Amino acid sequence: MSFSAELKNCALPPHHTQDTLGAAFTELRALLGPENVEIVSTASLDDKSYYDPPKTHDPFHILGQDELVASAVLRPGSTEDVQAIVKLANKHRLPIWPTSIGRNFGYGGAAPRVRGSAVVDLGARMNKVLDLNEPNAFALIEPGVTFLGLYEEIQRRGMKLWVDSPDLGGGSVLGNTLDRGVGYTPYGDHFGTHCGMEVVLPNGEVVRTGMGALPDKNQPTGSANTWQLFPYGFGPFHDGIFTQSNYGIVTKMGVWLMPDPGGYQAFMISFQKDEDLHPAIEIIRPLRIAGILQNTPSIRSATLDLAVGGPRKDYSLTGKPLTSAEIDNAVAKSTTKIGRWSFYGALYGPEAVRDVFWAAIKGAFSKIPGATFHFPSDVPPEKSVLHIREGTLRGLPTFTELEWTNFVPNGSAFFFSPISPVSGDHADRQYKLAKDRCDEFGFDYIGTFTVGMRELHHIVCLVFDRTNEEEKKRAYKMLNLMVQDCADAGYGEYRTHLALMDQIAGTYNWNDNALMKLNETLKDALDPNGIMAPGKSGVWPQAYREVKKRVVSGTSKI
Amino acid sequence: MSFSAELKNCALPPHHTQDTLGAAFTELRALLGPENVEIVSTASLDDKSYYDPPKTHDPFHILGQDELVASAVLRPGSTEDVQAIVKLANKHRLPIWPTSIGRNFGYGGAAPRVRGSAVVDLGARMNKVLDLNEPNAFALIEPGVTFLGLYEEIQRRGMKLWVDSPDLGGGSVLGNTLDRGVGYTPYGDHFGTHCGMEVVLPNGEVVRTGMGALPDKNQPTGSANTWQLFPYGFGPFHDGIFTQSNYGIVTKMGVWLMPDPGGYQAFMISFQKDEDLHPAIEIIRPLRIAGILQNTPSIRSATLDLAVGGPRKDYSLTGKPLTSAEIDNAVAKSTTKIGRWSFYGALYGPEAVRDVFWAAIKGAFSKIPGATFHFPSDVPPEKSVLHIREGTLRGLPTFTELEWTNFVPNGSAFFFSPISPVSGDHADRQYKLAKDRCDEFGFDYIGTFTVGMRELHHIVCLVFDRTNEEEKKRAYKMLNLMVQDCADAGYGEYRTHLALMDQIAGTYNWNDNALMKLNETLKDALDPNGIMAPGKSGVWPQAYREVKKRVVSGTSKI
Repeated sequence: MSFSAELKNCALPPHHTQDTLGAAFTELRALLGPENVEIVSTASLDDKSYYDPPKTHDPFHILGQDELVASAVLRPGSTEDVQAIVKLANKHRLPIWPTSIGRNFGYGGAAPRVRGSAVVDLGARMNKVLDLNEPNAFALIEPGVTFLGLYEEIQRRGMKLWVDSPDLGGGSVLGNTLDRGVGYTPYGDHFGTHCGMEVVLPNGEVVRTGMGALPDKNQPTGSANTWQLFPYGFGPFHDGIFTQSNYGIVTKMGVWLMPDPGGYQAFMISFQKDEDLHPAIEIIRPLRIAGILQNTPSIRSATLDLAVGGPRKDYSLTGKPLTSAEIDNAVAKSTTKIGRWSFYGALYGPEAVRDVFWAAIKGAFSKIPGATFHFPSDVPPEKSVLHIREGTLRGLPTFTELEWTNFVPNGSAFFFSPISPVSGDHADRQYKLAKDRCDEFGFDYIGTFTVGMRELHHIVCLVFDRTNEEEKKRAYKMLNLMVQDCADAGYGEYRTHLALMDQIAGTYNWNDNALMKLNETLKDALDPNGIMAPGKSGVWPQAYREVKKRVVSGTSKI
Repeated sequence: MSFSAELKNCALPPHHTQDTLGAAFTELRALLGPENVEIVSTASLDDKSYYDPPKTHDPFHILGQDELVASAVLRPGSTEDVQAIVKLANKHRLPIWPTSIGRNFGYGGAAPRVRGSAVVDLGARMNKVLDLNEPNAFALIEPGVTFLGLYEEIQRRGMKLWVDSPDLGGGSVLGNTLDRGVGYTPYGDHFGTHCGMEVVLPNGEVVRTGMGALPDKNQPTGSANTWQLFPYGFGPFHDGIFTQSNYGIVTKMGVWLMPDPGGYQAFMISFQKDEDLHPAIEIIRPLRIAGILQNTPSIRSATLDLAVGGPRKDYSLTGKPLTSAEIDNAVAKSTTKIGRWSFYGALYGPEAVRDVFWAAIKGAFSKIPGATFHFPSDVPPEKSVLHIREGTLRGLPTFTELEWTNFVPNGSAFFFSPISPVSGDHADRQYKLAKDRCDEFGFDYIGTFTVGMRELHHIVCLVFDRTNEEEKKRAYKMLNLMVQDCADAGYGEYRTHLALMDQIAGTYNWNDNALMKLNETLKDALDPNGIMAPGKSGVWPQAYREVKKRVVSGTSKI
């Protein structure tokens, strides 16, 4: 297809004509080479998008194809390329949307917030492990390094270091950290275990944070050798403002790696009754804060584990969400020894230490009648979530977890993730809030509570038929209501799909939206032309603030 | 004294006359009440400064009395007072310098960077523990809450929670965290264990960070009950830019508290030779990264422990810095069982867990010939640093540590704190760098290496006679050289006394000072009038940037 024909088929960003967009793309092609500037045809979106995701994970489908569509994909090969892209974006007022790998499917994948944005696909060519240090247990990576890639590089070098992978191992370590994702080993707080960034600012300048700002000509990076050892540096500590934000493009990041703890044992504790969630959470809180539960464990609904095991039709032929009796029945029939709720944790360290912790854990949970305790060796591996988690909880990148999207035909996944205190009452309230809405709207409640140091991430895993327009609209309507339900009850989401960013940002409105005013002040100072990821996390630059008003008022979708 | 007489005696800030300053103070007195606006007389500085520190800790003395002098002390009683002060400061272009308690004597106390700034003494009246929660193990505090105050409140309520105190217990928990100070329990990283802030911005607006931005009318704070449970919230995570910075005044902060671990044992390992530092650090690194050393331990020079025990004249009558032979002699005579280097650590948890860790620790350090292992029960308590550390390492606020300032007559303390990797070679290089300069300039080398997760904080404790002008100038000259020595070797400081802020900020200059340009962009966006703590961490607002040029070029001191 000719360049002009391609231009006709692609999504125009705001304030642009085919001519102005074509001028921008022409300069970008000269900069990166034509092979690294791919114009995205809206006509072909249904068959393929540039990063070729499995259709089940297509992030566009919750809102339909007119939204969240890129005009082009740019593939920089270096920090200098990224700087040059940013400078051209300023010149042409072209909105750009950086993405690392774009595999956070439940939160929108690689899709941009503003239709017609040029996606900067950092992962395609910037995918090197720049440093990997065993004695000091860290890596320095580019955006395209996946959890699996990092894991494999460590194995190749025979180092006794672990990675900390989220549920799926194909995503970007850097991208997940910037979205403040979590994993399941003791290094589960990815922001808390990163160290040092290199960031291209919206004006094209490149900064290094922390000790990276201290030059050292004798180091391969040109920065002090403590760049990946001490996160804070001197003066204001900036890294946090480059997460879930649109203030810069992170091109390098340090990540701390956990040394092999010298022993490991995964376990599952199964609870027989739906009401056991409350006492289980009450038991979890003090064990977690005391570090007896050493990692980021999770307690999962039976529906989630059943969905990993097979489609809904294996458990019910009604075509409707499973009833409580059907869930009980399916749990009873399962060979995987799951309960109505199943708690997945692990012990780390030498056997003598693990024994002390296990005695405390088993003793505490034994107070719940009917609780059963399982190690992977006790459970048949087929369709066993415990066997998947056994890998995940020691940082092994896995790929089977998201099988639950096949629970319904043509299933697509959407995560809704409010934060609550670690208490039985709050877990019950969270569960009821989500379950009631799911019942009302005809969806299965599928969920998991991931236990941070002092909070629950309640991850509601919504699965819907992406080919059914009515069902998609229904799902979106339900999600809108759940955001408001949560805000009314004092719960806020920690992360979100693009489709809910404005609504959720709007709930963090204490003192007349003081935090958003701060966000906008920073945005306008750093990005006066508003070219970088406009709308990310609900933060809109000056040039788009009229657009924002229309979006938030519901009169426009962008 | 009359108001006009007081004005005549106080230090004028830049761009001010007595009239304009008087107009500002008049409005501030109307706002806060005259008793909460204390004008500071330069004439009385030698006898007393407003916060009445012991003279040994007077922060002014390294540079002499013309520098770092406040014009007044303002004592707000509430966040609303702070907002009103900030608004008046904008109106009158009055530089203000917030301080919590101002006891970080080795780093400048409560003194302002710019002569004539009005110190905002947050600690005087804003000193409440607003929330203290045992099940979730956190506190919500105001700036005036000291480590001792928080500790005592916990004891009063009979809660099984620990605080994490730095070497002295009289400082502000909030202030220490904002300066990114460290303590010595497993919660030693104070920034890493804070959770949620309330911040008055330079425009007078108040924001709450993290989950604090989510309103909840049913909570006493008016914010979500996860404000102190989950630090990150939604969208950009701002807290880091309010540390070591001048972007806002933090008026409330959450702090995580460590639950009583169910067992505790402090220990000291003494090394006989100066050269034992190298192998000791090599042994420490893997133990620390693996979490077998569970806390932030430290390895201290014999001079530091000797100085706590008594003045230099107890060890030598030459009046000169101790020689290696004199140190050996003093160590041999000491009843406290210290070595040339002494390592202070602790074990936390049930006995069975402690036993495993102690076996690993003792086994590893036993490879150093002559290493001896001590518990507090083995050592006579008199002048025993181990007995002091036994308290500090379980978070007990103590007050005897800074006795080492009495090592020389009229001793004042100054901390110089470069960061290095945890390796024997780097520790040796750090030690030699500091020791050579101390020898050259006629000071005792007194130092400690505090071991963070992957880095050494090398704290050089300079003690000098504050009544000796020549000695002060010599000390300052030496410090200037050491900053450059360190930068040349790839080491940067993590924190500093006011007197070195510009020089140290200037060493973090990678890519043509890109990070400082970012700092200044943020500063100008948030504080267009440049009223808040100008010069803090070397960050100067637009209105003072000409001043900065003169300071950095050495033609002016402010």
